[in-house]
Parts: sequence; C-alpha cells; structure tokens
Amino acid sequence: MTHLLGKTAQDYLRQLAECSESETGVTRFPFTPEHRRANALLTAWMEEAGLRVHMDNAGTLIGRYDAGKNTRTLLMGSHQDSVKQGGAYDGIMGVVLPIIALKTLKRQGKTLPYSVEILAFGDEEGVRFPTALVGPRALAGTLDESVIDRKDKQGHSLRDALSSFGLEPEKIGQLKRRPENILGFIETHIEQGPVLEHEGLPLGVVSAICGIERHQLTFTGQAAHAGTVPMHLRKDALTAAAAVTLEAEKLAIKLPDLLATVGQLDVTPNVPNAVPGRVSMTIELRSPVDEVREKAGNILQTFAKETAQLRGLGCEVDRTYSQSATVCNASLQLSIASAIASLGKRVFTLPSGATHDASAMADLTPVAMLFVRCRKGISHNPSEFASEEDMGLAIKALMHLLSNLQP
Amino acid sequence: MTHLLGKTAQDYLRQLAECSESETGVTRFPFTPEHRRANALLTAWMEEAGLRVHMDNAGTLIGRYDAGKNTRTLLMGSHQDSVKQGGAYDGIMGVVLPIIALKTLKRQGKTLPYSVEILAFGDEEGVRFPTALVGPRALAGTLDESVIDRKDKQGHSLRDALSSFGLEPEKIGQLKRRPENILGFIETHIEQGPVLEHEGLPLGVVSAICGIERHQLTFTGQAAHAGTVPMHLRKDALTAAAAVTLEAEKLAIKLPDLLATVGQLDVTPNVPNAVPGRVSMTIELRSPVDEVREKAGNILQTFAKETAQLRGLGCEVDRTYSQSATVCNASLQLSIASAIASLGKRVFTLPSGATHDASAMADLTPVAMLFVRCRKGISHNPSEFASEEDMGLAIKALMHLLSNLQP
Repeated sequence: MTHLLGKTAQDYLRQLAECSESETGVTRFPFTPEHRRANALLTAWMEEAGLRVHMDNAGTLIGRYDAGKNTRTLLMGSHQDSVKQGGAYDGIMGVVLPIIALKTLKRQGKTLPYSVEILAFGDEEGVRFPTALVGPRALAGTLDESVIDRKDKQGHSLRDALSSFGLEPEKIGQLKRRPENILGFIETHIEQGPVLEHEGLPLGVVSAICGIERHQLTFTGQAAHAGTVPMHLRKDALTAAAAVTLEAEKLAIKLPDLLATVGQLDVTPNVPNAVPGRVSMTIELRSPVDEVREKAGNILQTFAKETAQLRGLGCEVDRTYSQSATVCNASLQLSIASAIASLGKRVFTLPSGATHDASAMADLTPVAMLFVRCRKGISHNPSEFASEEDMGLAIKALMHLLSNLQP
Repeated sequence: MTHLLGKTAQDYLRQLAECSESETGVTRFPFTPEHRRANALLTAWMEEAGLRVHMDNAGTLIGRYDAGKNTRTLLMGSHQDSVKQGGAYDGIMGVVLPIIALKTLKRQGKTLPYSVEILAFGDEEGVRFPTALVGPRALAGTLDESVIDRKDKQGHSLRDALSSFGLEPEKIGQLKRRPENILGFIETHIEQGPVLEHEGLPLGVVSAICGIERHQLTFTGQAAHAGTVPMHLRKDALTAAAAVTLEAEKLAIKLPDLLATVGQLDVTPNVPNAVPGRVSMTIELRSPVDEVREKAGNILQTFAKETAQLRGLGCEVDRTYSQSATVCNASLQLSIASAIASLGKRVFTLPSGATHDASAMADLTPVAMLFVRCRKGISHNPSEFASEEDMGLAIKALMHLLSNLQP
C-alpha cells in the first residue's frame, strides 16, 4: 500500500538510519548532528503530510494537524534516538508510521474532527545523558528540572545541548499540557520480543507496560576445601543460590503475569576445588500487575531467607529498585483492537516488558500502544527488522483508528 | 608428655615456622634459604634422635634408624614445604612427630627389630615449580625426569635448584627403592578438614586418599531481554546450570562415599536485565571408591545433557581430569587403629579428600595415614592449628605402632 505513495515505510526508515554516528547499525544520540539531520527529514515529511511543525523547548519535534479551535488533540509518536549501534526501527518507526497514515488520509481527502500531534521525542534511551524521557515528562509536568544540568561523558550539559538546538531550556516548565485538552497518547513500536512472531501475527495490542523490581541477594557461607569438608558440614553459598534461581523460574512459570530473571550471579572464590563461600545475585521481576510482582518479590525474599536458614548461611536481601506498571487505557486498547480486527487479523493482547515513552505520558493522559512484529524478537541490535508488509498493516490500523476515534 | 623431653612438639614447629619467607603465616618453598634453614634444624633433631642423616638427590632429607643388615625399613614422614602464607603444621608436623617418637623410644632404651627412615620431602605443594611429589616419585621410580627442567617464575630450573643444594639431579634415577626391602610408608598429617573436630576425636585412621575427577560444562542458550521474552520462549543457561548444581549436591548427599562440588560458575552476559545466554561451570567429584566417583560422573554428565535437551540448550561436557583413589593398606590401618585404641580413644576411620605424599608412595609400598585434628578444619592459612595435647597423643600412637609393628 505504501508503494502507492511512491515511497515505502522502509524507504523512510532507511533514510533516517543514515542519520547515524556509526556505520554499523544506528547510533543517533539526542542533540547531535545526527539528531539535527533526522529532524530535517521528519520536518519535511510532516509538512508533506500537512502538519505544522515546531520543536518544543524539551527537544521534542512536533507536527500538528489542526482541526480547529476548541478541538481536543490526540498525541501520537515515539522517540527519535537510538542506543549505540542499535536498529533502524526502535522508536523512530513510531514517528514515521503515523506521518504516513496522516499523509495518506490527507491524500484521500479525509478530515478529522479532532487535532493530532505527532511527537518525535529527543531522548528515550538515556544513553547520552544520565537521564531520559525529558520530552514526555515536560509535557506531563513531572520533569525534575535539575536533570537539565546533568552532563554527558564529554562534559556537555543537557542545558547546553538544548541551547545548541536553538531551544530555551529555562522555559521547559511552560511545556506542561492541560489534560482536558488531550484525547490520549498512542505509541506504535516494534515489539522487541518474540511473542508476535511466535503467534504468527503482525500486530498486537499492549495491555500494560510492566512494572519492574530488582532484588540484590547475597548468600554468605564458608569457603572450604572441596576434598576435606563432607557434605553435611558444608555451608555452600552456590547451592543455596541455585535453589533460589530455580524457585524464581518455577514461580514465573506458575504465574502467567510474571517474568522472573536471575541475570547476574557472582561466585566467590570461584575455583573448581573450593566450596563457594559467597554468592551475590540479582532477581528481576516484571509484571503488568503490580500486586503479582510485589507478592512474587515477597515470596522469593522469604524463600531465600528460609533457604539460607536451613543451610546455615547468612543472607542479605534488598529490593533495590521498583517501578509500577502502566496500564493501557481500556477504550484506546479497544480502538486499536477494532482497527486490527478490521484488517481481518486476530486481535492479540500482550504486555510490554520494556519501558516506553508511553510510561511517562501516562502521567498526562490515557495511553495505549500498538506493537509491530519484529524478526526473531531482536532489538537494540543492527539486525533489528520489521517487514514492509507488517508496517503497511500498522499504517492501515492507524488510519482506521484515526478515522473512527470519537473525540 | 613431650614436656618431659624439655621441648614440646609445638616448640619444634614454632622454630620451623620461623624458616619462612613471609612474616604472615609460613611461606617455605623448596630449595630456598628457608628450606635450607629448616633442614638444618631437622638434621640436628634427627641426630639427637640417633638417626643418620643425608639428603637424597631428589631433595628429600632422610634420617635413618638402622636396625642392622638384612632388616627391612619402615618409611615415615611428609613434606617440609608450605603453600604461600600457609600454616605451621601442614606437612612438616608429619616429619617432627615421628622424630620425637623415635627420640623418646631411644631415651627409653627401646630398640626396634626393623630399620626406620624419616623422610622430609622437598616439594609436595607444587607452588614453586610446575611439578610436585618429585621426592616420593623418585623413590617409587615413577618420576618423569623431564620435569627436572621445568622452571619457576624467576626462570630457575628445578635442576639448578637441586644443584644449588649440592645435589646431583642427573643421578635421580638411581633413587628407586626395591619394594621388597620396604615395610611400608606411614604419613602423619593434620586432617585439613573439620570431621575429627566435629566427632570430638584427636586422631583418625585414613581409609583411602580420594580419587578426583573434574568436569567442565558449558550451557549455551539465548541471551535475551529480561522484559520482552516470556518464560516459555526463553533459553536460559543459568536455570539449567542451577538444576545441575542441585543434582550434584543431591547425589553426593545420597551416596556416602561421594563429595561433589560446583566451585566455579561464570554467567554471560551477567547483567540484571538479561536472560543468561551462556554459563560455564565445573563439577569436582571426590571419592575413596573409584567406581562410585566414575558412576556419579556419568550420572551427572547424562543429567546435564538431558537438562539441556529438555530446555532447548546446547551443552558441552568434558571430563578434564581424573585421578584414582589410593586405598590405604589394611594391615597398616589396623596397626594405627590398635595404637589409637591403646590410648583409650575411639577408633574413627575417614577418607582423605586432599592428596598427600602417600599417594605417590603407594606406587612403591603399602601406605597408611594417621590424621590429627586441626582447629575448625582450617589449613593452607596462617591460623592453621593443632593442639599440643592432640600432637602428644599422635606421638604416643606412633610409639605404640613402632613398638608393636611386625617386620
């Protein structure tokens, strides 16, 4: 379908991928020459789609379809930046597809009874500066303005970076939007996981962005000669850690709304002929349902302590990080589901395990997300890929949604 | 009792501990000034005990009690060297206690119907040169003479080190003893484990020196984002490794003659928010019964492969090292047991998980070992300790054994 416009979604994304610091994959950090070049392309395409374009003082490029005074506004979009040597789809595809959708509607002579803004946020990945999500937080009024003085590795502050883009960072507080004027925020994004591919589906409706918590555990036993200490006199920190690793997996298999990962595990002294005296490990839990995640965290902390006690070990457990889930708006989810169904595709709902701009936007307005299948679930990698066919279906779904949304 | 001689076993060992390169603990490597000073002390004490002293061309200091022509010889002793910052008992105590035992018998006017040699081997720990057990192997005729040209970190060969001690390394092949002239080898050693302390016993009879095998395992799954890959689509290398770790422990608890240790385990990429894609780990098995160890190794290799298959992982398993057990001679074990019983102490038999000079001596002659309790099972550490009382009992046991052994 996008061929009818003379240029495919893949063509747009290929041009944007050239706005990269690295030759391998895409490296586009915020407020860099690459960001400037990407914005120039996006600005031109937004204007072709009939949008009025400006950049706000948080570095968000905004293209506005104005339906007239007193109309409320639907926000769409995602982030323009990438990780180091990332892919050509993560974030930026969620800016390009709505532009194509609006451009196509314009060509078809359609008008909408509400305004639309397409947002290309400057910094979601948080790779350059030790902060992220400045754009959506400024809109939601949740930005801690002190982060503007944080510096990148070269010693440039975010404030200086914004100024170098001709922006006025001191006015960032004025960006806060009034929720009553906003219809919602819809983010289109590659899934970054293998579920849609496994289900054989091009598109999915996101139910929620998972909450996350991390636990740091340390088991302290007694390092000992592997030959001279019989099994019943050992205080082996690794066997305790192994028991907790398997318990975390078992719990996550039992509870469908839970992911549990022991990702980091360090053994001391870590030699073949010594009983491990100390193990430190992490457990990360993710769930779209905060109660499930919190309960699982408590169960695993208790299990770890009891395991340590039974085995005569010391055990320190610490919940080092916790972030609540963002539940997607039911009505907007239904709009996306209807759009997918109108394409003759099975409606499939899944949580997002990764965090997105929509998490921060949820403080301002109802949010929802449309996931597009990506090859092998690979993301943050040069081999990241979504097919033209799947992106074409996503554009059609967005057009259906835009055409049918009640303001 | 040792006080009656004016000097306690502890006094002897304290003097020897001063022959150390380090101020903390004992560091006495072979063919060093410290070795030379220790030999001077041992030589003087051996001579006080009526022994004729010489050093053989493998660097073993030998004190001989000669019962006359055509008598067979009982060998006793252990090694003089220590690990880096080790303790004052490991090895050297097994040289000192037999000297005191013979000296006491001499004072008591006792003669023996067989000859005795007390051996202070130069190098058992293998810390300085990339070889060990040169002394006992030379006696057994099992020495690979090419090791004499191996070098320490400073580039000095073992050959040069032997020469610097006035020895003739080229004659090392002539040291091979004739088994028919030897009664056996009895090694006295601190337990280096916590079993005797746990049993409340000062002395123990060693049943066998455990055989050892090591396995290197590598599980290869798929590293993945901890948020975007659901449990049923994961290929987590760490949960597989955890299952094998617990299975090894379970097997060793079930089989009383087996020790199993997962001592080393390395996770890749080892970050909190990634499903581990690769784990490499070791399993070390020790048993006084070779069949038990070998069967356990096979069971665990099979378990690892099946676990990998069930979980869709790759698995490489490799038995990287294997050393047979040395069973202690039944008749000599009985002699040690009778000696312990004569002191009114319960006879307790245990395997040695660590390797000793006796392992190499077993190629020449029947061997047996007397274990002495050490505090908290600590060894290879400055805080290594055996009490004067326990060592006194060991001396009495050796005297009983020497007085009652049938040539």
